Amino acid sequence: MPSDQPQPALVLVRPQMGENIGAAARAMWNFGLDRMRIVAPRDGWPNPAAVAMSSGAGRLLDEARLSDKLADAVGDCSYVYATTARGRGLTKPVLSPERAMADAAARIAAGEKVAVLFGPERAGLENEDVARANAIISVPVNPEFASLNLAQCVLLVSYEWMRAAGEVVHEADVPAKGDWASAIEIEKLATHYEDRLGEAGFFYPPEKAEGMKINLRNLWSRMRLTRADVQMLHGVMRQMVRWKERDGS
Amino acid sequence: MPSDQPQPALVLVRPQMGENIGAAARAMWNFGLDRMRIVAPRDGWPNPAAVAMSSGAGRLLDEARLSDKLADAVGDCSYVYATTARGRGLTKPVLSPERAMADAAARIAAGEKVAVLFGPERAGLENEDVARANAIISVPVNPEFASLNLAQCVLLVSYEWMRAAGEVVHEADVPAKGDWASAIEIEKLATHYEDRLGEAGFFYPPEKAEGMKINLRNLWSRMRLTRADVQMLHGVMRQMVRWKERDGS
Repeated sequence: MPSDQPQPALVLVRPQMGENIGAAARAMWNFGLDRMRIVAPRDGWPNPAAVAMSSGAGRLLDEARLSDKLADAVGDCSYVYATTARGRGLTKPVLSPERAMADAAARIAAGEKVAVLFGPERAGLENEDVARANAIISVPVNPEFASLNLAQCVLLVSYEWMRAAGEVVHEADVPAKGDWASAIEIEKLATHYEDRLGEAGFFYPPEKAEGMKINLRNLWSRMRLTRADVQMLHGVMRQMVRWKERDGS
Repeated sequence: MPSDQPQPALVLVRPQMGENIGAAARAMWNFGLDRMRIVAPRDGWPNPAAVAMSSGAGRLLDEARLSDKLADAVGDCSYVYATTARGRGLTKPVLSPERAMADAAARIAAGEKVAVLFGPERAGLENEDVARANAIISVPVNPEFASLNLAQCVLLVSYEWMRAAGEVVHEADVPAKGDWASAIEIEKLATHYEDRLGEAGFFYPPEKAEGMKINLRNLWSRMRLTRADVQMLHGVMRQMVRWKERDGS
Protein backbone atom coordinates (compact mmCIF):
# COMPACT_ATOMS: atom_id res chain seq x y z
CA MET A 1 0.00 0.00 0.00
CA PRO A 2 1.41 3.40 -0.88
CA SER A 3 2.31 5.66 1.99
CA ASP A 4 -0.22 8.27 3.05
CA GLN A 5 2.36 11.02 2.77
CA PRO A 6 1.35 13.43 -0.02
CA GLN A 7 4.13 13.38 -2.55
CA PRO A 8 4.92 13.91 -6.22
CA ALA A 9 4.37 11.07 -8.67
CA LEU A 10 7.55 10.17 -10.59
CA VAL A 11 6.76 9.29 -14.18
CA LEU A 12 9.13 7.20 -16.29
CA VAL A 13 8.34 8.01 -19.90
CA ARG A 14 9.06 5.16 -22.37
CA PRO A 15 11.82 3.62 -20.24
CA GLN A 16 13.96 1.08 -22.08
CA MET A 17 15.90 -1.21 -19.76
CA GLY A 18 14.03 -3.07 -17.03
CA GLU A 19 17.14 -2.78 -14.84
CA ASN A 20 16.83 0.98 -14.90
CA ILE A 21 13.17 0.86 -13.91
CA GLY A 22 14.08 -1.35 -10.95
CA ALA A 23 16.99 0.91 -9.98
CA ALA A 24 14.72 3.95 -10.21
CA ALA A 25 12.25 2.28 -7.82
CA ARG A 26 15.04 1.70 -5.31
CA ALA A 27 16.27 5.26 -5.67
CA MET A 28 12.76 6.60 -5.02
CA TRP A 29 12.09 4.44 -2.00
CA ASN A 30 15.46 5.36 -0.48
CA PHE A 31 13.99 8.81 -0.08
CA GLY A 32 10.47 7.79 0.87
CA LEU A 33 8.79 8.19 -2.52
CA ASP A 34 6.54 5.33 -3.62
CA ARG A 35 4.26 6.59 -6.39
CA MET A 36 5.75 5.49 -9.67
CA ARG A 37 4.01 5.87 -12.98
CA ILE A 38 5.23 4.30 -16.19
CA VAL A 39 4.36 5.30 -19.73
CA ALA A 40 4.75 2.80 -22.59
CA PRO A 41 7.77 0.81 -21.34
CA ARG A 42 9.73 -0.53 -24.31
CA ASP A 43 9.82 -4.14 -23.11
CA GLY A 44 6.23 -4.41 -21.88
CA TRP A 45 4.95 -4.85 -18.37
CA PRO A 46 5.50 -6.47 -15.94
CA ASN A 47 9.24 -6.68 -16.59
CA PRO A 48 11.24 -9.44 -14.88
CA ALA A 49 14.53 -7.49 -15.15
CA ALA A 50 12.91 -4.57 -13.37
CA VAL A 51 11.67 -6.84 -10.60
CA ALA A 52 15.09 -8.46 -10.19
CA MET A 53 16.78 -5.07 -9.82
CA SER A 54 14.21 -3.59 -7.47
CA SER A 55 14.89 -5.76 -4.42
CA GLY A 56 13.39 -4.18 -1.36
CA ALA A 57 11.41 -1.73 -3.46
CA GLY A 58 9.46 -4.23 -5.54
CA ARG A 59 6.20 -2.96 -4.09
CA LEU A 60 6.64 0.25 -6.11
CA LEU A 61 6.61 -1.78 -9.33
CA ASP A 62 3.56 -3.79 -8.27
CA GLU A 63 1.69 -0.59 -7.54
CA ALA A 64 3.06 1.43 -10.48
CA ARG A 65 0.40 3.00 -12.65
CA LEU A 66 0.87 1.99 -16.24
CA SER A 67 -0.32 4.16 -19.15
CA ASP A 68 0.03 4.09 -22.89
CA LYS A 69 0.20 7.81 -23.20
CA LEU A 70 1.82 10.55 -21.19
CA ALA A 71 -1.37 12.60 -21.35
CA ASP A 72 -3.19 9.86 -19.41
CA ALA A 73 -0.34 9.41 -16.94
CA VAL A 74 -0.45 13.00 -15.76
CA GLY A 75 -4.13 13.64 -16.34
CA ASP A 76 -4.86 14.15 -12.65
CA CYS A 77 -1.89 16.46 -12.00
CA SER A 78 -2.14 20.22 -11.87
CA TYR A 79 1.59 20.88 -12.11
CA VAL A 80 4.20 18.88 -14.04
CA TYR A 81 7.99 19.17 -14.06
CA ALA A 82 10.09 17.72 -16.89
CA THR A 83 13.70 16.70 -16.26
CA THR A 84 15.96 17.53 -19.18
CA ALA A 85 19.71 17.66 -19.66
CA ARG A 86 19.73 20.46 -22.19
CA GLY A 87 18.03 23.79 -22.17
CA ARG A 88 15.25 23.50 -24.72
CA GLY A 89 14.87 27.05 -25.80
CA LEU A 90 11.42 26.88 -24.26
CA THR A 91 9.82 29.66 -22.36
CA LYS A 92 9.32 27.80 -19.12
CA PRO A 93 10.86 28.19 -15.73
CA VAL A 94 14.10 26.18 -15.45
CA LEU A 95 14.68 25.05 -11.88
CA SER A 96 17.42 23.19 -10.04
CA PRO A 97 16.26 19.96 -8.38
CA GLU A 98 16.39 21.76 -5.04
CA ARG A 99 14.22 24.67 -6.15
CA ALA A 100 11.87 22.38 -8.00
CA MET A 101 11.25 20.13 -5.00
CA ALA A 102 10.81 23.10 -2.68
CA ASP A 103 8.25 24.38 -5.16
CA ALA A 104 6.61 20.95 -5.37
CA ALA A 105 6.42 20.69 -1.58
CA ALA A 106 4.69 24.05 -1.41
CA ARG A 107 2.21 23.08 -4.13
CA ILE A 108 1.47 19.72 -2.54
CA ALA A 109 0.98 21.37 0.84
CA ALA A 110 -1.55 23.60 -0.87
CA GLY A 111 -3.43 20.55 -2.16
CA GLU A 112 -2.05 20.31 -5.71
CA LYS A 113 -1.12 17.06 -7.40
CA VAL A 114 2.27 17.21 -9.07
CA ALA A 115 4.35 14.91 -11.23
CA VAL A 116 7.95 14.77 -12.40
CA LEU A 117 8.75 13.35 -15.83
CA PHE A 118 11.89 11.38 -16.69
CA GLY A 119 12.68 10.56 -20.30
CA PRO A 120 13.98 7.37 -21.92
CA GLU A 121 17.60 6.49 -21.24
CA ARG A 122 19.17 7.34 -24.52
CA ALA A 123 17.36 10.33 -25.91
CA GLY A 124 15.55 11.89 -22.99
CA LEU A 125 12.13 13.47 -23.27
CA GLU A 126 10.80 14.54 -26.64
CA ASN A 127 9.85 18.15 -27.13
CA GLU A 128 6.28 16.94 -27.31
CA ASP A 129 6.61 15.50 -23.80
CA VAL A 130 8.22 18.63 -22.45
CA ALA A 131 5.39 20.63 -23.95
CA ARG A 132 3.09 19.04 -21.35
CA ALA A 133 5.21 20.27 -18.49
CA ASN A 134 4.81 23.51 -16.58
CA ALA A 135 8.47 23.78 -15.62
CA ILE A 136 11.82 22.21 -16.37
CA ILE A 137 14.20 20.61 -13.90
CA SER A 138 17.83 20.79 -14.93
CA VAL A 139 20.51 19.16 -12.79
CA PRO A 140 23.63 21.31 -12.60
CA VAL A 141 26.35 19.02 -13.95
CA ASN A 142 29.90 19.35 -15.19
CA PRO A 143 29.50 20.86 -18.67
CA GLU A 144 32.43 18.70 -19.82
CA PHE A 145 30.75 15.50 -18.67
CA ALA A 146 27.01 15.27 -18.27
CA SER A 147 26.20 11.59 -18.18
CA LEU A 148 23.63 11.05 -15.47
CA ASN A 149 21.61 7.93 -16.08
CA LEU A 150 17.91 7.52 -15.46
CA ALA A 151 18.20 6.08 -11.94
CA GLN A 152 20.75 8.72 -10.92
CA CYS A 153 18.47 11.49 -12.08
CA VAL A 154 15.59 9.91 -10.16
CA LEU A 155 17.90 9.60 -7.15
CA LEU A 156 18.81 13.30 -7.11
CA VAL A 157 15.22 14.47 -7.51
CA SER A 158 14.07 12.06 -4.78
CA TYR A 159 16.88 13.19 -2.49
CA GLU A 160 15.83 16.81 -2.97
CA TRP A 161 12.24 15.84 -2.34
CA MET A 162 13.14 14.35 1.02
CA ARG A 163 15.13 17.45 1.90
CA ALA A 164 12.31 19.73 0.86
CA ALA A 165 9.69 17.70 2.64
CA GLY A 166 11.74 18.39 5.73
CA GLU A 167 11.29 14.91 7.03
CA VAL A 168 14.77 13.93 7.97
CA VAL A 169 17.59 16.28 8.68
CA HIS A 170 19.50 14.77 11.54
CA GLU A 171 22.26 17.23 12.12
CA ALA A 172 23.63 17.13 15.53
CA ASP A 173 26.77 17.74 17.44
CA VAL A 174 25.37 15.82 20.33
CA PRO A 175 27.66 13.41 22.10
CA ALA A 176 26.43 9.93 21.40
CA LYS A 177 27.74 8.47 24.62
CA GLY A 178 27.37 10.36 27.85
CA ASP A 179 27.34 14.08 28.21
CA TRP A 180 29.69 16.90 27.53
CA ALA A 181 32.05 17.52 30.40
CA SER A 182 31.20 20.46 32.62
CA ALA A 183 33.56 23.38 33.12
CA ILE A 184 34.43 22.15 36.58
CA GLU A 185 35.41 18.77 35.19
CA ILE A 186 37.62 20.44 32.59
CA GLU A 187 39.13 22.53 35.35
CA LYS A 188 39.99 19.43 37.36
CA LEU A 189 41.52 17.81 34.31
CA ALA A 190 43.64 20.88 33.61
CA THR A 191 44.80 21.00 37.21
CA HIS A 192 45.62 17.31 37.23
CA TYR A 193 47.87 17.69 34.17
CA GLU A 194 49.40 20.89 35.43
CA ASP A 195 50.29 19.34 38.80
CA ARG A 196 51.80 16.16 37.42
CA LEU A 197 53.63 17.94 34.60
CA GLY A 198 54.90 20.43 37.16
CA GLU A 199 56.38 17.61 39.22
CA ALA A 200 57.83 16.12 36.07
CA GLY A 201 59.60 19.38 35.24
CA PHE A 202 57.59 20.15 32.09
CA PHE A 203 57.17 23.87 32.68
CA TYR A 204 60.69 24.95 31.93
CA PRO A 205 62.30 27.44 31.74
CA PRO A 206 60.46 29.21 34.57
CA GLU A 207 59.81 32.40 32.63
CA LYS A 208 57.88 30.39 30.04
CA ALA A 209 55.92 28.35 32.57
CA GLU A 210 52.92 30.66 32.69
CA GLY A 211 52.51 30.75 28.92
CA MET A 212 52.83 27.00 28.67
CA LYS A 213 50.12 26.52 31.29
CA ILE A 214 47.82 28.86 29.44
CA ASN A 215 48.39 27.03 26.17
CA LEU A 216 47.56 23.76 27.81
CA ARG A 217 44.38 25.13 29.37
CA ASN A 218 43.35 26.59 26.05
CA LEU A 219 43.71 23.20 24.52
CA TRP A 220 41.45 21.49 27.03
CA SER A 221 38.80 24.15 26.85
CA ARG A 222 38.79 24.20 23.06
CA MET A 223 38.40 20.49 22.71
CA ARG A 224 34.73 19.92 23.53
CA LEU A 225 35.38 16.90 25.70
CA THR A 226 32.79 14.44 26.91
CA ARG A 227 32.87 13.00 30.42
CA ALA A 228 34.25 9.79 28.94
CA ASP A 229 37.04 11.73 27.24
CA VAL A 230 37.93 13.44 30.50
CA GLN A 231 38.07 10.10 32.28
CA MET A 232 40.32 8.71 29.59
CA LEU A 233 42.67 11.66 29.76
CA HIS A 234 42.84 11.38 33.54
CA GLY A 235 43.61 7.71 33.03
CA VAL A 236 46.40 8.49 30.57
CA MET A 237 48.15 10.73 33.07
CA ARG A 238 47.54 8.45 36.05
CA GLN A 239 49.01 5.55 34.15
CA MET A 240 52.17 7.46 33.25
CA VAL A 241 52.66 8.35 36.90
CA ARG A 242 51.97 4.78 37.99
CA TRP A 243 54.52 3.53 35.47
CA LYS A 244 57.14 5.91 36.80
CA GLU A 245 56.43 4.98 40.39
CA ARG A 246 56.40 1.28 39.76
CA ASP A 247 59.68 1.22 37.89
CA GLY A 248 61.18 4.02 39.92
CA SER A 249 60.53 2.66 43.38
CA MET B 1 45.74 16.07 -15.88
CA PRO B 2 43.62 16.82 -12.83
CA SER B 3 41.72 20.08 -12.86
CA ASP B 4 43.25 23.06 -11.10
CA GLN B 5 40.11 23.61 -9.09
CA PRO B 6 40.84 23.02 -5.39
CA GLN B 7 38.52 20.25 -4.29
CA PRO B 8 38.13 17.44 -1.79
CA ALA B 9 39.77 14.10 -2.46
CA LEU B 10 37.26 11.23 -2.51
CA VAL B 11 38.75 8.13 -0.94
CA LEU B 12 37.33 4.69 -1.68
CA VAL B 13 38.36 2.48 1.22
CA ARG B 14 38.77 -1.22 0.35
CA PRO B 15 36.27 -1.12 -2.53
CA GLN B 16 35.17 -4.54 -3.73
CA MET B 17 33.63 -4.48 -7.20
CA GLY B 18 35.52 -2.85 -10.04
CA GLU B 19 32.18 -1.83 -11.56
CA ASN B 20 31.46 0.30 -8.51
CA ILE B 21 34.85 2.00 -8.69
CA GLY B 22 34.16 2.87 -12.32
CA ALA B 23 30.65 4.10 -11.51
CA ALA B 24 32.03 6.20 -8.66
CA ALA B 25 34.51 7.82 -11.06
CA ARG B 26 31.66 8.73 -13.40
CA ALA B 27 29.57 10.06 -10.53
CA MET B 28 32.47 12.27 -9.41
CA TRP B 29 33.26 13.65 -12.81
CA ASN B 30 29.59 14.43 -13.46
CA PHE B 31 30.02 17.06 -10.79
CA GLY B 32 33.52 18.20 -11.64
CA LEU B 33 35.48 16.19 -9.08
CA ASP B 34 38.55 14.36 -10.36
CA ARG B 35 40.76 13.47 -7.40
CA MET B 36 40.09 9.88 -6.50
CA ARG B 37 42.13 7.94 -3.97
CA ILE B 38 41.80 4.21 -3.49
CA VAL B 39 42.86 2.19 -0.46
CA ALA B 40 43.53 -1.54 -0.79
CA PRO B 41 41.02 -2.43 -3.54
CA ARG B 42 39.92 -6.04 -3.08
CA ASP B 43 40.65 -7.11 -6.65
CA GLY B 44 43.97 -5.31 -7.08
CA TRP B 45 44.80 -2.43 -9.35
CA PRO B 46 44.40 -1.56 -12.18
CA ASN B 47 41.00 -3.22 -12.47
CA PRO B 48 39.59 -3.93 -15.96
CA ALA B 49 35.99 -3.95 -14.71
CA ALA B 50 36.48 -0.48 -13.26
CA VAL B 51 37.89 0.77 -16.54
CA ALA B 52 35.01 -0.73 -18.53
CA MET B 53 32.45 0.98 -16.30
CA SER B 54 34.15 4.35 -16.17
CA SER B 55 33.67 5.37 -19.80
CA GLY B 56 34.27 9.07 -20.17
CA ALA B 57 35.79 9.30 -16.70
CA GLY B 58 38.62 6.79 -17.17
CA ARG B 59 41.18 9.52 -16.56
CA LEU B 60 40.16 9.56 -12.90
CA LEU B 61 41.17 5.92 -12.58
CA ASP B 62 44.48 6.48 -14.37
CA GLU B 63 45.28 9.30 -12.01
CA ALA B 64 43.83 7.73 -8.85
CA ARG B 65 46.25 7.60 -5.94
CA LEU B 66 46.57 4.07 -4.65
CA SER B 67 47.53 3.28 -1.04
CA ASP B 68 47.77 0.17 1.06
CA LYS B 69 46.61 1.96 4.16
CA LEU B 70 44.07 4.60 4.91
CA ALA B 71 46.60 6.47 7.05
CA ASP B 72 48.78 6.99 3.98
CA ALA B 73 45.85 7.94 1.77
CA VAL B 74 44.84 10.88 3.95
CA GLY B 75 48.26 11.75 5.34
CA ASP B 76 48.31 15.17 3.69
CA CYS B 77 44.76 16.13 4.71
CA SER B 78 43.92 18.29 7.69
CA TYR B 79 40.19 17.51 7.73
CA VAL B 80 38.57 14.20 6.95
CA TYR B 81 34.87 13.29 6.61
CA ALA B 82 33.64 9.71 6.86
CA THR B 83 30.40 8.66 5.19
CA THR B 84 28.45 6.18 7.28
CA ALA B 85 24.92 4.84 7.17
CA ARG B 86 24.49 4.26 10.87
CA GLY B 87 25.17 6.54 13.76
CA ARG B 88 28.27 5.10 15.37
CA GLY B 89 27.86 6.18 18.91
CA LEU B 90 30.81 8.46 18.31
CA THR B 91 31.12 11.97 19.54
CA LYS B 92 31.83 13.65 16.26
CA PRO B 93 29.83 16.17 14.32
CA VAL B 94 27.27 14.42 12.12
CA LEU B 95 26.57 16.45 8.99
CA SER B 96 24.22 16.15 6.06
CA PRO B 97 25.99 16.00 2.68
CA GLU B 98 24.92 19.59 2.10
CA ARG B 99 26.35 20.90 5.35
CA ALA B 100 29.48 18.81 4.98
CA MET B 101 30.26 20.09 1.50
CA ALA B 102 29.55 23.69 2.51
CA ASP B 103 31.99 23.14 5.37
CA ALA B 104 34.50 21.51 3.02
CA ALA B 105 34.25 24.39 0.55
CA ALA B 106 34.95 26.90 3.32
CA ARG B 107 37.93 24.90 4.58
CA ILE B 108 39.34 24.47 1.09
CA ALA B 109 38.94 28.19 0.44
CA ALA B 110 40.98 28.75 3.61
CA GLY B 111 43.76 26.54 2.25
CA GLU B 112 42.99 23.26 3.98
CA LYS B 113 43.20 19.87 2.30
CA VAL B 114 40.16 17.73 2.92
CA ALA B 115 39.11 14.18 2.10
CA VAL B 116 35.86 12.22 2.16
CA LEU B 117 35.97 8.50 2.97
CA PHE B 118 33.62 5.90 1.47
CA GLY B 119 33.58 2.36 2.85
CA PRO B 120 33.43 -0.99 1.10
CA GLU B 121 30.12 -1.91 -0.51
CA ARG B 122 28.86 -4.48 1.91
CA ALA B 123 29.98 -3.46 5.35
CA GLY B 124 30.88 0.20 5.11
CA LEU B 125 33.76 1.77 7.00
CA GLU B 126 35.20 0.03 10.05
CA ASN B 127 35.20 1.86 13.36
CA GLU B 128 38.96 2.04 13.02
CA ASP B 129 38.55 3.95 9.74
CA VAL B 130 35.97 6.30 11.20
CA ALA B 131 38.34 6.97 14.09
CA ARG B 132 40.58 8.80 11.61
CA ALA B 133 37.83 11.18 10.59
CA ASN B 134 37.02 14.56 12.05
CA ALA B 135 33.35 14.46 11.14
CA ILE B 136 30.70 12.10 9.84
CA ILE B 137 28.52 12.52 6.78
CA SER B 138 25.17 10.82 7.03
CA VAL B 139 22.76 10.92 4.09
CA PRO B 140 19.19 11.42 5.28
CA VAL B 141 17.39 8.39 3.88
CA ASN B 142 14.10 6.61 4.39
CA PRO B 143 14.56 4.80 7.69
CA GLU B 144 12.52 1.91 6.28
CA PHE B 145 14.80 1.51 3.28
CA ALA B 146 18.37 2.72 3.37
CA SER B 147 20.11 0.98 0.54
CA LEU B 148 22.31 3.55 -1.16
CA ASN B 149 25.15 1.88 -2.98
CA LEU B 150 28.71 3.14 -3.16
CA ALA B 151 28.36 5.06 -6.43
CA GLN B 152 25.06 6.63 -5.31
CA CYS B 153 26.66 7.84 -2.11
CA VAL B 154 29.57 9.28 -4.12
CA LEU B 155 27.03 10.85 -6.47
CA LEU B 156 25.17 12.68 -3.71
CA VAL B 157 28.32 13.97 -2.04
CA SER B 158 29.70 15.10 -5.41
CA TYR B 159 26.41 16.79 -6.28
CA GLU B 160 26.49 18.68 -3.00
CA TRP B 161 30.11 19.61 -3.66
CA MET B 162 29.18 21.21 -6.95
CA ARG B 163 26.37 23.10 -5.27
CA ALA B 164 28.57 24.25 -2.42
CA ALA B 165 31.53 25.19 -4.62
CA GLY B 166 29.24 27.59 -6.44
CA GLU B 167 28.52 29.54 -3.32
CA VAL B 168 31.59 29.50 -1.11
CA VAL B 169 31.38 31.61 1.98
CA HIS B 170 34.77 32.37 3.40
CA GLU B 171 34.24 31.76 7.05
CA ALA B 172 36.31 28.74 7.95
CA ASP B 173 37.58 28.50 11.47
CA VAL B 174 41.09 29.66 10.77
CA PRO B 175 43.60 28.84 13.46
CA ALA B 176 44.80 31.94 15.21
CA LYS B 177 48.36 30.72 15.56
CA GLY B 178 49.98 28.54 12.98
CA ASP B 179 48.29 25.98 10.82
CA TRP B 180 46.06 23.04 11.49
CA ALA B 181 47.90 19.80 11.90
CA SER B 182 47.73 17.43 8.96
CA ALA B 183 46.40 13.89 9.26
CA ILE B 184 49.94 12.52 9.15
CA GLU B 185 50.91 14.66 12.11
CA ILE B 186 47.86 13.49 14.03
CA GLU B 187 48.72 9.95 13.09
CA LYS B 188 52.22 10.34 14.53
CA LEU B 189 50.83 11.86 17.70
CA ALA B 190 48.35 9.00 18.11
CA THR B 191 51.11 6.46 17.54
CA HIS B 192 53.40 8.19 20.01
CA TYR B 193 50.77 8.05 22.75
CA GLU B 194 49.77 4.52 21.87
CA ASP B 195 53.36 3.29 22.02
CA ARG B 196 54.26 4.93 25.31
CA LEU B 197 50.95 4.07 26.93
CA GLY B 198 51.40 0.52 25.72
CA GLU B 199 54.78 0.33 27.44
CA ALA B 200 53.22 1.84 30.53
CA GLY B 201 50.57 -0.88 30.63
CA PHE B 202 47.64 1.44 29.91
CA PHE B 203 45.81 -0.86 27.50
CA TYR B 204 44.54 -3.35 30.02
CA PRO B 205 42.82 -5.79 30.10
CA PRO B 206 43.96 -7.04 26.67
CA GLU B 207 40.44 -7.67 25.38
CA LYS B 208 39.66 -4.00 25.88
CA ALA B 209 42.91 -2.74 24.35
CA GLU B 210 41.56 -2.34 20.83
CA GLY B 211 38.54 -0.34 21.93
CA MET B 212 40.69 1.87 24.14
CA LYS B 213 43.02 2.61 21.25
CA ILE B 214 40.10 3.52 19.00
CA ASN B 215 38.67 5.82 21.67
CA LEU B 216 42.00 7.56 21.98
CA ARG B 217 42.31 7.97 18.22
CA ASN B 218 38.80 9.33 18.04
CA LEU B 219 39.77 11.91 20.58
CA TRP B 220 42.77 13.14 18.62
CA SER B 221 40.94 13.28 15.31
CA ARG B 222 38.02 15.12 16.85
CA MET B 223 40.09 17.77 18.51
CA ARG B 224 41.10 19.96 15.58
CA LEU B 225 44.66 20.42 16.72
CA THR B 226 47.06 23.00 15.41
CA ARG B 227 50.69 22.14 14.78
CA ALA B 228 51.55 23.93 18.02
CA ASP B 229 49.02 21.81 19.93
CA VAL B 230 50.52 18.66 18.50
CA GLN B 231 54.00 19.74 19.54
CA MET B 232 52.78 20.49 23.03
CA LEU B 233 51.07 17.11 23.36
CA HIS B 234 54.20 15.36 22.14
CA GLY B 235 56.08 17.37 24.75
CA VAL B 236 53.69 16.31 27.51
CA MET B 237 54.24 12.65 26.79
CA ARG B 238 58.01 12.99 26.26
CA GLN B 239 58.32 14.76 29.57
CA MET B 240 56.42 12.06 31.45
CA VAL B 241 58.72 9.43 29.97
CA ARG B 242 61.82 11.50 30.74
CA TRP B 243 60.63 11.90 34.32
CA LYS B 244 60.17 8.16 34.69
CA GLU B 245 63.54 7.43 33.16
CA ARG B 246 65.39 10.00 35.24
CA ASP B 247 63.94 8.90 38.57
CA GLY B 248 63.65 5.30 37.55
CA SER B 249 67.23 4.76 36.43
